[in-house]
Amino acid sequence: MKRAPFSVIISFIKRGLNNMTKTTKQFNLLDLLKKFSVLGRTSSEGVTRRVYDSNWVAAQLKYADLAEKYGLNVFTDKMGNLYASTSNDPEQGPVIMTGSHMDTVVNGGKLDGTYGTLASLVSLGELVAEYGAPKVPIVAVSFSEEEGSRFETTFTGSKFLTNQFDDTVYNITDKENITFEDARKKALDELKSKIKMMHSKWKIAKYIELHIEQGPVLEKERIPIGIVTGITGQIRVLIQTHGIANHAGTTPMNMRDDAMRKAVSLMNDIYQELEQTSGLRYTIGKITATPNVANVVPNNVTFSLDMRHLDQSILNKVFDEISKLVERHDGKLTLTTNVKASKMNPHLKSVLEAAAQNKNLDYKCLPSGAGHDAQVVSYKFPTGMIFVPSINGISHSPLEKTEAKDLINGRETLKDALYKLAY
Amino acid sequence: MKRAPFSVIISFIKRGLNNMTKTTKQFNLLDLLKKFSVLGRTSSEGVTRRVYDSNWVAAQLKYADLAEKYGLNVFTDKMGNLYASTSNDPEQGPVIMTGSHMDTVVNGGKLDGTYGTLASLVSLGELVAEYGAPKVPIVAVSFSEEEGSRFETTFTGSKFLTNQFDDTVYNITDKENITFEDARKKALDELKSKIKMMHSKWKIAKYIELHIEQGPVLEKERIPIGIVTGITGQIRVLIQTHGIANHAGTTPMNMRDDAMRKAVSLMNDIYQELEQTSGLRYTIGKITATPNVANVVPNNVTFSLDMRHLDQSILNKVFDEISKLVERHDGKLTLTTNVKASKMNPHLKSVLEAAAQNKNLDYKCLPSGAGHDAQVVSYKFPTGMIFVPSINGISHSPLEKTEAKDLINGRETLKDALYKLAY
Repeated sequence: MKRAPFSVIISFIKRGLNNMTKTTKQFNLLDLLKKFSVLGRTSSEGVTRRVYDSNWVAAQLKYADLAEKYGLNVFTDKMGNLYASTSNDPEQGPVIMTGSHMDTVVNGGKLDGTYGTLASLVSLGELVAEYGAPKVPIVAVSFSEEEGSRFETTFTGSKFLTNQFDDTVYNITDKENITFEDARKKALDELKSKIKMMHSKWKIAKYIELHIEQGPVLEKERIPIGIVTGITGQIRVLIQTHGIANHAGTTPMNMRDDAMRKAVSLMNDIYQELEQTSGLRYTIGKITATPNVANVVPNNVTFSLDMRHLDQSILNKVFDEISKLVERHDGKLTLTTNVKASKMNPHLKSVLEAAAQNKNLDYKCLPSGAGHDAQVVSYKFPTGMIFVPSINGISHSPLEKTEAKDLINGRETLKDALYKLAY
Repeated sequence: MKRAPFSVIISFIKRGLNNMTKTTKQFNLLDLLKKFSVLGRTSSEGVTRRVYDSNWVAAQLKYADLAEKYGLNVFTDKMGNLYASTSNDPEQGPVIMTGSHMDTVVNGGKLDGTYGTLASLVSLGELVAEYGAPKVPIVAVSFSEEEGSRFETTFTGSKFLTNQFDDTVYNITDKENITFEDARKKALDELKSKIKMMHSKWKIAKYIELHIEQGPVLEKERIPIGIVTGITGQIRVLIQTHGIANHAGTTPMNMRDDAMRKAVSLMNDIYQELEQTSGLRYTIGKITATPNVANVVPNNVTFSLDMRHLDQSILNKVFDEISKLVERHDGKLTLTTNVKASKMNPHLKSVLEAAAQNKNLDYKCLPSGAGHDAQVVSYKFPTGMIFVPSINGISHSPLEKTEAKDLINGRETLKDALYKLAY
């Protein structure tokens, strides 16, 4: 897309955008992704950008700088969410919001979160450059935190914006024993010195998030665009079996109480139970035995079970069945994660489908098995979500990658949808 | 048992013991066990005495000192095995040997090895004090190493004595990167400065080892003496299943290659296969998953399988069956330990039974599921073994304990057997 400074200036004058600078610059999304990947780059070419750390501050300031260069109004809030808005008045009527998160997992990729964040800003910048101010204000957002990679809490940015934030989070400490509150204050001091603080919250009419799929479906089926139907609910539990530690050689079989034997039998029954339920995704990803020595009968085995389904009632039913199964096996179950399933807005879904069609892009409607800010926002506001393919389905890894043309296709689809909704 | 210094002196003169000092002292076994438990005591009241470390050197020197005080001839060899002998000539015809090992596991108890080592020395000292020199020379031994707690090698003391030592051991390094050879040399320099070095090896007529059971059988059945029938063969393998790591939420079930699911199915089949074989002891004690994260499908699961049986042909057959099973499950099996089953000598077994009867002690013939120096020696020479009860079957732990009266009963039974064999 060509830069159009003169037409932009004319368009600004025509539409009378409030307080927007009258010159704008355009940026290449792929270049931007490269530049942001340096902020927290790891030795293995991954990215570690944890909320409120120095790389995170640098990235949010860079985002603000870009937004200003696009001639947008820039705001931050108490959490350090960044907003690039066509409106200079946060109190103004409902806005169309689009974006993703700026933090990463430890040694993650350069696309998860950052792609949607930058693609939203670029799309908005281009729309304004081409068409001037929208009828409905558009706000691009760079959420402060989604991954939970620094503090044992997730989605704090979108939760704060949508009034789902729990104040106990302020006291959570990271590995260096720094509280969320102290880290937040220090980072906010840096942001506030350059960015306008907003003390109200945006009224959200609609939210659209663009993200990499982080799964293999689109790539395997060679489909460039995914339209998300809903985000699966997730229940994660830790299951323990107990026994008595004893010498593997000297303890007769009939005098043993073997936690591993119990665990294997229970895990086997869990798999058999869960494979009955269509649409369920289930994973035993983590296991530890104590004392975990080849010649000692284990006295404890602990394993995780992660279950996800688009239909919350089915997920709840499965959880009940597993609870009973664990009880029958004399095990112990602890619920560690419980995120409710969410449905994307049907109207927004059809807008996104039309946008893909408009761009001549094949698309597929599919659920998201991973959590996203869109999930948190969708509990409160109409939400839609676009996926682009992930090569080999890999994410949360330095190997995370998406073809350049797919990155562009995603941005084009988003831009088309935003235009339809706001202009 | 009373000290009898005068009769001992007379007895020495009558029997004409070569080079034995003419005054002897007697020691209390329980006191000695306490004193040796200080050499390597850990913060949790356990004992860590690894071969050739400073506590090990101190313990062997203390053993030598005791032996000298008993008026016995003391020798060491290239491995640092200590011998307390009624004969001053190692070239002299076959001897009756009795003892155990001086090293411990990391944070082990004060009885495993040390009990048999000290009880043998005390029994021999008392026999000589009471009855003078035996017809057949008796040698008490304190083997240098059995546990493998410093270097990845076990039984080096008894293997060296019985010509089963593998020279590649010299190059094995410990965690501080010190070679077995360097550690050995340094420790031997200290021993040699005080103890006579022998360059030949004892000709062994018979070997008897006294040890704690390290299992629950004798204590549960309230029987003070165990006569070991044989030591189980042990085959230990590592089994691996492979898959592809993927996101637990975004990867549909039909696109997964889940190493945990394969491992659970395989472990379940292994248990079902192994429970068919009577007399087999089998343990899955150790398991690790990679990357071992709750929301990632594991790409690798590795678990140990330890199998023991008194009958080597049955053990071999079971191993073959497991190998086939692992192959059918597309797993990978690596043999890590293969210790052949050994049978105790029937004549020595009957001598030990008679000794227990003579002491009015109830006894039970039982297999040993743990490895012992007696196992190594038995491949070459007639061997017998006595067990005393372990409270709760606990061993390799600071909680390892045996009632005082049981410790005394074991020593009395050994002493009686030695008398019958040598006088």
